[in-house]
Amino acid sequence: MTNSNTIAAIATTPGGAIGIIRVSGNRSIEICDKIFLSINARKLCNAKSHTLHFGKIITHNSEQVEELIDEVLVSVFRAPHSYTGEDSVEISCHGSRYVMQRIMQLLIMEGANQAQPGEFTQRAFVNGKLDLSQAEAVADLIAANSAATHQMAINQLRGGFSQELSHLRENLLKLTSLLELELDFSEEDVEFANRTDLYALANTIAGRILHLTDSFQTGNAIKNGVPVAIIGAPNVGKSTLLNALLHEEKAIVSDIQGTTRDVIEDIIQIQGITFRFADTAGIRKTRDSIEQMGIERSLKALDHANIILLISESGIEFPNVRIPEDKKVIRVINKSDITHPASSFVYNKISAGGYIHISALTGAGIPLLEQELVKAAAIPEINNNDPIVTNIRHYEALTKAHEAISRVITGMDEQLSGDLLAQDLRLCLFHLAEITGGEITSDEVLGNIFKNFCIGK
Amino acid sequence: MTNSNTIAAIATTPGGAIGIIRVSGNRSIEICDKIFLSINARKLCNAKSHTLHFGKIITHNSEQVEELIDEVLVSVFRAPHSYTGEDSVEISCHGSRYVMQRIMQLLIMEGANQAQPGEFTQRAFVNGKLDLSQAEAVADLIAANSAATHQMAINQLRGGFSQELSHLRENLLKLTSLLELELDFSEEDVEFANRTDLYALANTIAGRILHLTDSFQTGNAIKNGVPVAIIGAPNVGKSTLLNALLHEEKAIVSDIQGTTRDVIEDIIQIQGITFRFADTAGIRKTRDSIEQMGIERSLKALDHANIILLISESGIEFPNVRIPEDKKVIRVINKSDITHPASSFVYNKISAGGYIHISALTGAGIPLLEQELVKAAAIPEINNNDPIVTNIRHYEALTKAHEAISRVITGMDEQLSGDLLAQDLRLCLFHLAEITGGEITSDEVLGNIFKNFCIGK
Repeated sequence: MTNSNTIAAIATTPGGAIGIIRVSGNRSIEICDKIFLSINARKLCNAKSHTLHFGKIITHNSEQVEELIDEVLVSVFRAPHSYTGEDSVEISCHGSRYVMQRIMQLLIMEGANQAQPGEFTQRAFVNGKLDLSQAEAVADLIAANSAATHQMAINQLRGGFSQELSHLRENLLKLTSLLELELDFSEEDVEFANRTDLYALANTIAGRILHLTDSFQTGNAIKNGVPVAIIGAPNVGKSTLLNALLHEEKAIVSDIQGTTRDVIEDIIQIQGITFRFADTAGIRKTRDSIEQMGIERSLKALDHANIILLISESGIEFPNVRIPEDKKVIRVINKSDITHPASSFVYNKISAGGYIHISALTGAGIPLLEQELVKAAAIPEINNNDPIVTNIRHYEALTKAHEAISRVITGMDEQLSGDLLAQDLRLCLFHLAEITGGEITSDEVLGNIFKNFCIGK
Repeated sequence: MTNSNTIAAIATTPGGAIGIIRVSGNRSIEICDKIFLSINARKLCNAKSHTLHFGKIITHNSEQVEELIDEVLVSVFRAPHSYTGEDSVEISCHGSRYVMQRIMQLLIMEGANQAQPGEFTQRAFVNGKLDLSQAEAVADLIAANSAATHQMAINQLRGGFSQELSHLRENLLKLTSLLELELDFSEEDVEFANRTDLYALANTIAGRILHLTDSFQTGNAIKNGVPVAIIGAPNVGKSTLLNALLHEEKAIVSDIQGTTRDVIEDIIQIQGITFRFADTAGIRKTRDSIEQMGIERSLKALDHANIILLISESGIEFPNVRIPEDKKVIRVINKSDITHPASSFVYNKISAGGYIHISALTGAGIPLLEQELVKAAAIPEINNNDPIVTNIRHYEALTKAHEAISRVITGMDEQLSGDLLAQDLRLCLFHLAEITGGEITSDEVLGNIFKNFCIGK
């Protein structure tokens, strides 16, 4: 990775009143001086850090006639007091795509490079402005679309998770040094460190790591949505049900950024919780091989779901599918407005048989169904001070760290010597350090992390 | 209009890396101090103008626990050195819709009001930072989507048009004072002002106003697109032709902001010029009253068009419609791949009969048709120093000013007395002043101008 070059990128979505173009690197101020004419003719290179300058972005056409591109405000930041830790400039122009593209062209002509996705944040990490888990929180914060996702991202950004990891690291180092002490004096047959104390400390560490690992299910459900598989015979009204759940949420749903939407998935927010509904092919016995493939896909969706929504209608049996034990099941009988036309029919409680009666068409029974979905999602309240793991990379590192500390505990049970235990302790430390990027992090890992950022961040 | 209150608005489209929230008004700095905690604990109220401050947006929940909303950069501008001319603050946060909405909520809770569309620019006008035609150029600049629309907007923003108007105004005042001089001494039978000179001056003014009025056709065509009516019998391939012209332009087309698209209009850019194609109902003799209505609408589209594209195919007569004399006509024969299957058939020149042979299906002949459309659009090169009128409000005011100055000239021809001429001169001055808002402008006029702005501008 080289950061000697100067990068530039459009950092706002075009079409607003204001557009921001970000420039960072050793030459950022010098490059901007070439295209910016301050209203008081002062050069940016003489400007103090954290100052704003009004003026014009100009260029010259082939006949050397001055062309005005836009009137802008320019912010100057001097290293290390900037987001990236480098000299930086932000150009605040009118939010026209055309204007922003022209300014980008000029910057590139003067020697800046188009920034890669997340490259500003990557530089901030490399320059020690934030650790890797905080850098990842930046992308999560931008994508935050609910109070819960915002809370998780901001906790991680402000370093709550990093502190927890740092605390674990301290305990692990303490454990290591106690074991090493034991090792040094083992010849003398003096039992320095009380093995019972060491054992308790290792167990505390393991328990805390497991707690973090366990939080991933919640974190993932909040961040990516709770997967729900809708399973039912054809024509029982699966699509109508989805539309009924959508209400006027459609606008919010299409706004969610950065979610990869499978064609057969509908993303719906109910009471602030995001659900991902996989509308599966209708399930019935068939000899049609293409339809059979669709059904197999449906059964796979069932495996990935946390909640199974079985839907049927009066007179039609519920689909006969084997449901894994760890899934929550909601049974819905649709078209109840036909079988129970009386206006006195009670939709707002679960029937004796455990069914929710609904009419996807009229919307009757939908509030109860929503309530049951929220209950089945079982998202706990988020505590400000209790970090929640939301990132699969962190989850994997924590899982490996937990395996290592578990081997230490087993080793103690088996009275293994300190030097053997120390190996696994170092491995546990290594995996925890992976999360914050404390140890040397490979370009490949960094590339994978930052490629999912938006340009300009 | 009251501007004693403090307004706030989101000024960027959500979803980018960075989001900007703008605050302006007497209390803007005080309000922001309530929700912003600077990293060095300094208050914004002590900050100098044009300085940037890093810190946190915070609030307290019902249990008085501090909640972090985002880490932000805050810009402080002190009156009159701001866009609006008032004390102003810009909050640069992460570009999440959720974060921006939370910050807006906090600002409103602390006493700011949600800004109306264009209210920042309206305040800039009221505080004398720009005139009305420059204010209107701001909206045009944001909507600019081509070199031509950008050039026109930036010329108007930098005041080229305003200067031209100011020059006209000076000449009108000179004319008025000369006439008044004549008036004062008329009793003494001394001919002070040479009427021939006055006449020449009035004609120069009238000619210049007419030049501006005439430029509106170009300005409007560049800004809103050149209207083209496609007229032909049913099934001769009008829709296929539009698709052929669209090529891969579709993406660019859907990007155009602020254009009101009629359902039957397709907007296509050809060689940087925007065309609005009104795809009309097929024209043929019919007794069906509904189809008849469709045909009448088509004939109306024909009236509004600059270019009429008549389309037919071999063996089918061209539609027999009366075409107004000021329209340019292009005659196209479609499906020529069927009538002229030889691969040697020449598509790239107009036939002896004045037809362009095309195959909308294969794309043959389309380049020639595009070339003829661009020729028929007759958009002149834009000269940096020659203002082009793009705004219907300006056009209407100029038309009225021209009527007034024309009456002055006729009056001179008829040897009317100076005091009668002065009345029309004042009217001419009044209409020119309407454009820049130099005279007292009614709330209604201002409301109409700024309602089309985006929020946050």
